[in-house]
Amino acid sequence: MFNLIEIDLLRHGKVDAPPALYGVTDAFVAAEENHKIVTKLSQFIDRSYDNSSTGHYDEIYTSPLTRCRSLAQLIGRQTKTEVKTLSTLQEMNFGLLDGVSFDELETVDLSAFPQVSQQKPWSLLEAFWQNPAQVNLPLAEPLIDFNRRIIQMWQQLLSQVVHQGVTCKNKQKKLLLVCHGGVIRMILAHILNLDWTNPSLYSTLAIANGSLTRIVISSLNSDNPLNSENLSLVESSSSASLHYQVKHIATPLIS
Amino acid sequence: MFNLIEIDLLRHGKVDAPPALYGVTDAFVAAEENHKIVTKLSQFIDRSYDNSSTGHYDEIYTSPLTRCRSLAQLIGRQTKTEVKTLSTLQEMNFGLLDGVSFDELETVDLSAFPQVSQQKPWSLLEAFWQNPAQVNLPLAEPLIDFNRRIIQMWQQLLSQVVHQGVTCKNKQKKLLLVCHGGVIRMILAHILNLDWTNPSLYSTLAIANGSLTRIVISSLNSDNPLNSENLSLVESSSSASLHYQVKHIATPLIS
Repeated sequence: MFNLIEIDLLRHGKVDAPPALYGVTDAFVAAEENHKIVTKLSQFIDRSYDNSSTGHYDEIYTSPLTRCRSLAQLIGRQTKTEVKTLSTLQEMNFGLLDGVSFDELETVDLSAFPQVSQQKPWSLLEAFWQNPAQVNLPLAEPLIDFNRRIIQMWQQLLSQVVHQGVTCKNKQKKLLLVCHGGVIRMILAHILNLDWTNPSLYSTLAIANGSLTRIVISSLNSDNPLNSENLSLVESSSSASLHYQVKHIATPLIS
Repeated sequence: MFNLIEIDLLRHGKVDAPPALYGVTDAFVAAEENHKIVTKLSQFIDRSYDNSSTGHYDEIYTSPLTRCRSLAQLIGRQTKTEVKTLSTLQEMNFGLLDGVSFDELETVDLSAFPQVSQQKPWSLLEAFWQNPAQVNLPLAEPLIDFNRRIIQMWQQLLSQVVHQGVTCKNKQKKLLLVCHGGVIRMILAHILNLDWTNPSLYSTLAIANGSLTRIVISSLNSDNPLNSENLSLVESSSSASLHYQVKHIATPLIS
């Protein structure tokens, strides 16, 4: 059984597409950008662990969107690690405004949506970004649904990993999740017990492209490794000998 | 006037002293450890800015405690930058248990303190760490006082920097604050509008020794640089054209 599970959350690189709010709209990242992130990630791991990063991760998960999947597959190929696509790791769906380039934003017709029909698309988007829990974008995934989806994904993933530990000789498990800014914020809010409706988490906390956030779940007592029973204790924060640690947030790998 | 103020919060290195809860108790960091942090900081800045880190910071502030001051002075000497000691940057005072080595913790006499006299020192310390806003240590600075001290220090420092900007030709100002884990948490809670009584901020969010947290205050509108008037807008988060960003939290410089 594991006594330590380390989960790295890597945000995808900057997309090679017109500036826009990209949620479920697919967009590409230039191969050069992905290669740069992989090199920097490998250097970061080497610095942290004083060893080669080949095969550092036991498992790699990715959002199905190309901007994440292309990066995850590159890491997978270089480290000979299988990459699993997890549909629930996808970014929030921003609805009608999702992927519309900022230059063309004002051409979006909001007239069919009574609640926002009086607003200009640009000011609606700004209002949303200032307070995404209160402002709903037309046809978008409500923030509360996004929150529930991510927490459920997280709990299922951990539960699955802990189950693997039952038949595994290794004491440690290292996972990489290649995903999105919104997803990383929701995971952090969950683990740190923060109010996920707090606008500052979206407008003030930056999660840069290609940045790395590290979560560690550990057992402080070697007689009490991570298992299904005490996983729920970690989640409920009621056990002193097992705990979550957020080691660092949005560590920039590329400048 | 400035249109960008970048503030780096650097936590001191690991102290060369028996494991204990160090607040206002002075403790040393080995010269080798400080040199390692300075080298890694310089490399980090070079990577981020593609330039030499000499003179990167316009001003360096430090907590008066030796574990911070020795590091700040080393950075100051190497970059020929004056180091200013700020007494309000000091760590929280943990009272009777401050600096008592964990090995000797059980010898502490709590009998004179009716509210905790029934507890063992070790379990009191654990209870405190799990919930520092609810559990008061004997003779310690209450967490609410510590919170007020840090917010006041932060606002005074920003106000002072913004005033300097009035007579300064530079558009950017870069500050380094060498300080403590508790101080960095309080600044983050303030900027991100988090509940500073939330136990997870203390037990789950790690701020490693020698880690770097970066805050940026910027004007999105070049016609509206940072001045005393709109500084209060940044603080009240009511201006869309001026804002705080937390760029990264606890980026590990040394492994």
